[in-house]
Amino acid sequence: MDPTLRRMVCPVLAFLLLLEGGMLSLSSPPPAGLLGRLWQHIDHHQDELVQALKEWVAVESDSVQPLPRLRQELSRMMGLASERLRNLGASVDAVDLGTQQLPDGQTLPLPPILLAELGDDPRKPTVCFYGHLDVQPARAEDGWLSDPYTLTELDGKLYGRGTTDNKGPVLAWINAVGTFRALKQDLPVNVKFMLEGMEEAGSVGLEQLVQREKDGFFSGVDYIVISDNLWLSRTKPALTYGTRGNAYFTVEVKCRDQDFHSGTFGGILHEPMTDLVALLGSLVDSSGHILIPGIYDQVDPVMEEEKAMYEAIDLDLEEYRHSSRVRKFLFDSKEEILMHLWRYPSLSIHGIEGAFDEPGAKTVIPGRVLGKFSIRLVPHMNTTAVEKQVKQHLEHVFSARNSANQVAVSMTLGLQPWVANVRDRQYLAARRAIRAVFGTEPDMIRDGSTIPIARIFQDTLQKSVMMLPLGAVDDGEHSQNEKINRRNYIEGSKLFAAFFLELAELHQ
Amino acid sequence: MDPTLRRMVCPVLAFLLLLEGGMLSLSSPPPAGLLGRLWQHIDHHQDELVQALKEWVAVESDSVQPLPRLRQELSRMMGLASERLRNLGASVDAVDLGTQQLPDGQTLPLPPILLAELGDDPRKPTVCFYGHLDVQPARAEDGWLSDPYTLTELDGKLYGRGTTDNKGPVLAWINAVGTFRALKQDLPVNVKFMLEGMEEAGSVGLEQLVQREKDGFFSGVDYIVISDNLWLSRTKPALTYGTRGNAYFTVEVKCRDQDFHSGTFGGILHEPMTDLVALLGSLVDSSGHILIPGIYDQVDPVMEEEKAMYEAIDLDLEEYRHSSRVRKFLFDSKEEILMHLWRYPSLSIHGIEGAFDEPGAKTVIPGRVLGKFSIRLVPHMNTTAVEKQVKQHLEHVFSARNSANQVAVSMTLGLQPWVANVRDRQYLAARRAIRAVFGTEPDMIRDGSTIPIARIFQDTLQKSVMMLPLGAVDDGEHSQNEKINRRNYIEGSKLFAAFFLELAELHQ
Repeated sequence: MDPTLRRMVCPVLAFLLLLEGGMLSLSSPPPAGLLGRLWQHIDHHQDELVQALKEWVAVESDSVQPLPRLRQELSRMMGLASERLRNLGASVDAVDLGTQQLPDGQTLPLPPILLAELGDDPRKPTVCFYGHLDVQPARAEDGWLSDPYTLTELDGKLYGRGTTDNKGPVLAWINAVGTFRALKQDLPVNVKFMLEGMEEAGSVGLEQLVQREKDGFFSGVDYIVISDNLWLSRTKPALTYGTRGNAYFTVEVKCRDQDFHSGTFGGILHEPMTDLVALLGSLVDSSGHILIPGIYDQVDPVMEEEKAMYEAIDLDLEEYRHSSRVRKFLFDSKEEILMHLWRYPSLSIHGIEGAFDEPGAKTVIPGRVLGKFSIRLVPHMNTTAVEKQVKQHLEHVFSARNSANQVAVSMTLGLQPWVANVRDRQYLAARRAIRAVFGTEPDMIRDGSTIPIARIFQDTLQKSVMMLPLGAVDDGEHSQNEKINRRNYIEGSKLFAAFFLELAELHQ
Repeated sequence: MDPTLRRMVCPVLAFLLLLEGGMLSLSSPPPAGLLGRLWQHIDHHQDELVQALKEWVAVESDSVQPLPRLRQELSRMMGLASERLRNLGASVDAVDLGTQQLPDGQTLPLPPILLAELGDDPRKPTVCFYGHLDVQPARAEDGWLSDPYTLTELDGKLYGRGTTDNKGPVLAWINAVGTFRALKQDLPVNVKFMLEGMEEAGSVGLEQLVQREKDGFFSGVDYIVISDNLWLSRTKPALTYGTRGNAYFTVEVKCRDQDFHSGTFGGILHEPMTDLVALLGSLVDSSGHILIPGIYDQVDPVMEEEKAMYEAIDLDLEEYRHSSRVRKFLFDSKEEILMHLWRYPSLSIHGIEGAFDEPGAKTVIPGRVLGKFSIRLVPHMNTTAVEKQVKQHLEHVFSARNSANQVAVSMTLGLQPWVANVRDRQYLAARRAIRAVFGTEPDMIRDGSTIPIARIFQDTLQKSVMMLPLGAVDDGEHSQNEKINRRNYIEGSKLFAAFFLELAELHQ
């Protein structure tokens, strides 16, 4: 079915089926009546649900920039979420993580992690939802068409920092739970929440808390659901069974702390920017191939069955390219594109701190510059080996330059990749719920991004972890004009409600 | 004589000579009595002169960042200077330059250029002082030890943006004139001022005004003095007879306007930062040699007599290196260092606009980045040829990458180099004045920086142009913690007073 047609048909179908008390999807019958009533309630309260998102987006809960003001906003954000969970009837434990000392010596408070519980019926499955309420930095002047912290709706799109990453999906889960409460229906599952505020800055303190609560908060948990990534398309839902890791590096080149005037010193200095540009230029070639010796040694070889899986994925490359607003990708085939996003490493240069970055023409020789780049890791690369390879490579390149400057390479984040077992029961429940809401099978995909919590949960708790994204591919997470479609947010709330029912049924 | 000793001896000597009405310098007799009284007056009013500088430094007259607020500050700065000149008795014409349209479409007001006159006695020589009252950007958080716009004195150093570049020297000239007025002494020269507010941003509108006023304001001018550069040492004065030019380039690489998330898109994009780093990395090698084909073709060959001149210059390389706080320069000999600062071109990479430049670890693929670099030009390179060579080179490098991105190279400033005739009368007068104040011959030097007005005056007006710097080599112009020594500012005011008297005498 044409995806556009499918989107139009679905709500009509749902409404008709609701009236008849009949089946809600072409392939998977939900419990008669209840799911329909849940969905109708969600539809009738759409604007309230959007208003709730607006309130959360209004909080500048940016965890990336290490500023006391922003940490206060983060703390306020966690307080708002805590209040909303308590209003649902959940018991909430706001776990204090204390403070964080930054490399520059600054000490900043960490936002608490919320551990919340709703129901403890031993006959029901227990599903824990992980989400985060911190966001990437956003400045209006970076090219936002509306204020990033004022939720703005245009053509069915809800624009604002954090709408899709990850405030919208967290609220959708809360909306699903809240709808059962509003209709005075017993929740078919026990629900737990783990909500953090440092995901965009390396999830400080999270892994330790998961380990600590392994036999506490997490002891009765059967399933863990994360909704912190995107579909592969603008219209077709997806289920995600793997993510790449990330090794984030800084390379500092220093001549002296002060900058120089390029007229007064240009021509006699080993200029730090010249060194840094050469170092950054040695990392990756114009075809995207990483030039660090040994970096591909630990990458899994591609198996025949894996190739077949990639071939089965329904991706309109032209549509994808168009919605990404990219003239041309590095590769021409669907399989190559997906493999390079999901199962091969990539290296991106993010920027330079300490150089001239403002409009205008400043004639400065920066005295000390800090380059930033990161490598997305795939099975079975590991951060320790990658750190060593990167440092050796950069030190080798630098030493060949005979520069009098000082260089320092540092891996500031090292997050492992993750792959799940897609035969777990909750994957089946999610597929059924997706069919109910969207009338289609999901794409079974990986995600090129890093959601370290997935691997932490799987490694630490040995529980089934599933990623069930709500956002569309063009949501622009981490970018200017981030948005979530009103439809994805509302249907996503319905999807989670359906998932609870399906999971309860399958769990018996 | 040891420079430190000389600095201590000089004021004592001046005072003794004043009492005796005798000679003021070892080599050049000033008019008996008057010069001494001028100097004494300056010494007695030191704190008032410093206070005047404090008031000017407090104005954030940053012309580099194209912001309406800063243009208002610039305009206020020109108003303060105008008022001070009028108080001296000068007639002041604040020439309105209208507005400036920036490449991004923004229109900003330009500060006026002040043309001021004091005296029109046809028997006296007429000397025109050129200076600028705009400054480079400065932010406290860039590493300033005191607020950049609050003049702060520590150990005889007056810290603040613009103290040495160029507010201090402009005020020193005004102080010299003011001292004659205060003592009710006839000025031995007719004085004119041309003060602008856009020097750090390419002197917009200035050249046109000089051309327009060639037969007007400038018709009676015999000599032009500029004091907008630095000595070669911390203690020994200098006279400057040449400057390098500057060709400032931007190179934009664009995939799309929005940024990307490096997890969602890393691995399949021609990343603009990767392209840009490769382009910037193709410009200059680790020994400072510019790699743009043909760039050295127009550089004057080194003559034997020129070599001898460089050998004669008194430069303590170790002291220079130490005061610059640089571990090691690209070259080991005094001659190589000076030639690479003055008579060879250099290329500096200033920074990148549009990439991630803040603290923290943002996982962004910038969608559109703008690299900035500039080439200091020497005789007889010219900006037109250089622009062509740079564009051809970068387009060649880019095309070899087969990138799908768009590249745009632009020369945003093109300023020619300048060399003066050191046999002009005012150079002799300045040498005498320097001997009177500092008891030493000046270093005869060039400057690696670009002061385009020197060349504009010489080319347009065919007048003798001289650069008579007041600041010491460690003043940190364009850098954090810019300063002028109190001594340089005060003795500089005396030097200009002595120069007026010497010039009048030689002119007869």
